[in-house]
Amino acid sequence: MEAIKRIRLVLIGAGNVGRRFLKLLVHKRDALRARYSLDPILVGVADTSGAAMAADGLDPQRVIELKGSGQGVASYAPWGKAGMSALELVRQAQADVLLEASPTNLQDGEPGLSCIREALQQGMHVVTANKGPLVLAYPQLMELAAERGVKVAFSGTVAGGLPTVNLGRRDLAGSEILKLEGVLNLTTNYILTQMMEEGKPYTEALAAAQAAGHAEADPSLDVEGWDAANKLVILAQSVLGYPATLADVEVEGITGIRPEALKRAKAQGRTIKLIAKAEKRDDGVESRKVVPLAL
Amino acid sequence: MEAIKRIRLVLIGAGNVGRRFLKLLVHKRDALRARYSLDPILVGVADTSGAAMAADGLDPQRVIELKGSGQGVASYAPWGKAGMSALELVRQAQADVLLEASPTNLQDGEPGLSCIREALQQGMHVVTANKGPLVLAYPQLMELAAERGVKVAFSGTVAGGLPTVNLGRRDLAGSEILKLEGVLNLTTNYILTQMMEEGKPYTEALAAAQAAGHAEADPSLDVEGWDAANKLVILAQSVLGYPATLADVEVEGITGIRPEALKRAKAQGRTIKLIAKAEKRDDGVESRKVVPLAL
Repeated sequence: MEAIKRIRLVLIGAGNVGRRFLKLLVHKRDALRARYSLDPILVGVADTSGAAMAADGLDPQRVIELKGSGQGVASYAPWGKAGMSALELVRQAQADVLLEASPTNLQDGEPGLSCIREALQQGMHVVTANKGPLVLAYPQLMELAAERGVKVAFSGTVAGGLPTVNLGRRDLAGSEILKLEGVLNLTTNYILTQMMEEGKPYTEALAAAQAAGHAEADPSLDVEGWDAANKLVILAQSVLGYPATLADVEVEGITGIRPEALKRAKAQGRTIKLIAKAEKRDDGVESRKVVPLAL
Repeated sequence: MEAIKRIRLVLIGAGNVGRRFLKLLVHKRDALRARYSLDPILVGVADTSGAAMAADGLDPQRVIELKGSGQGVASYAPWGKAGMSALELVRQAQADVLLEASPTNLQDGEPGLSCIREALQQGMHVVTANKGPLVLAYPQLMELAAERGVKVAFSGTVAGGLPTVNLGRRDLAGSEILKLEGVLNLTTNYILTQMMEEGKPYTEALAAAQAAGHAEADPSLDVEGWDAANKLVILAQSVLGYPATLADVEVEGITGIRPEALKRAKAQGRTIKLIAKAEKRDDGVESRKVVPLAL
């Protein structure tokens, strides 16, 4: 038998992503031991209420239950610390791996960006589901990780269920990828499908998407194309391997699409999708855009 | 600048796969240095004529040219050794990585199987495109590799262009995969499509596949379903994680499919595919089959 390897984890963010991760920790514990000889220990977790930290491990199930009953992790007795910041937790928790699942903030990437920097500086590996820090500081974060000899895993930030980043970086490691193109946003795709198939105008299709739980109350990040643009910036840097910023992306959302345009496309046997596309042309010109296209 | 890392390679087999690999070595040399600080050196190559071996490296371009002019690698002066076996080359070449691209032999897996065993015993990593050794000895080879702390990469043996094995083993590493199902053989798919769309009987469709270069002169491995069965055995072991042998697989090829069956399927808006399927059911019963199915 191989020796069981304890891995000390610290989790920032206990929203939807964070809690699903905690459920996996509970459900997969035995399988991870049996299959990989791994024993992950949750040594800290932070949310907006503060943090909870315990060197011998917190109970992930108790964190899930606290959050389910509307309480913050600071109320995890006796290890909760009201008002302790995520960054302070990363500094103190002495973990091996940071799991960063705080909300995407495109202004300054916080609190995720500082937490990731701090973790890398300490020599921790980082797994992040948060686009903000990568969109704002991909080259710097990767350089820091390389310096410290640690890994940053972020395939979950783009097309979570499809390993897009992993395919591009690992499976095609020896290839030069010149172009990538795809539908990178679920909400707009749902809305366009509703408009196309049900003949609904934009506002009704948006309301249906909100009712189905596919669109946020404030849908602007999705419908104006910025969510797809964020993902495109991450893919351009990681898969195409060139510097890219949000400001470089030509972005046009779907709010201006009129039912007539969809009708016309349909009559021609075509459909309209919000396509994200990044390309390095033979003449060296690079382009990045998120635009509705008839296919 | 990172130091350039020399990797000493030995290649067994200089047929289609082996030569394409050598072309990549030539064309990607600069990119591998720039991107990964890697400098692969071909220290040995073997084919049916014998071997060539040089500690300072052979010229991959010269090997390609020799083979292109119908000569064996033993004629590579002054490093060629007529009659030197592949196994002897692996023993002597002092390489870091074995690339195994000899023809698939399902009787005893040779010469690939002995070469892979020898390489693993010496602590070399192995990259193989050869199904035979894996179909015959997957568990033993993986155990040996784990003991020696080296890797066996074999994603190219199944659906080469799609990273099926890598997706199952790496990207879904935390998941329990219960079933896998797919079209795993190009030749039979081509023949069935010809029969379906052009209304050709089996023998004509096979002749078309042979003319198009999709089928071998002796097509039995493909059309009787054994090629797909081999791939299924490799996927069952590596992705589903259970022991499987060719003898466990229920195999029915496409030679018995009559045009009427295809016509009937077509009339129902269905199509017939040679489906490979491995499944672990809730009651613990495992099944593996390669059979034509109407979809």
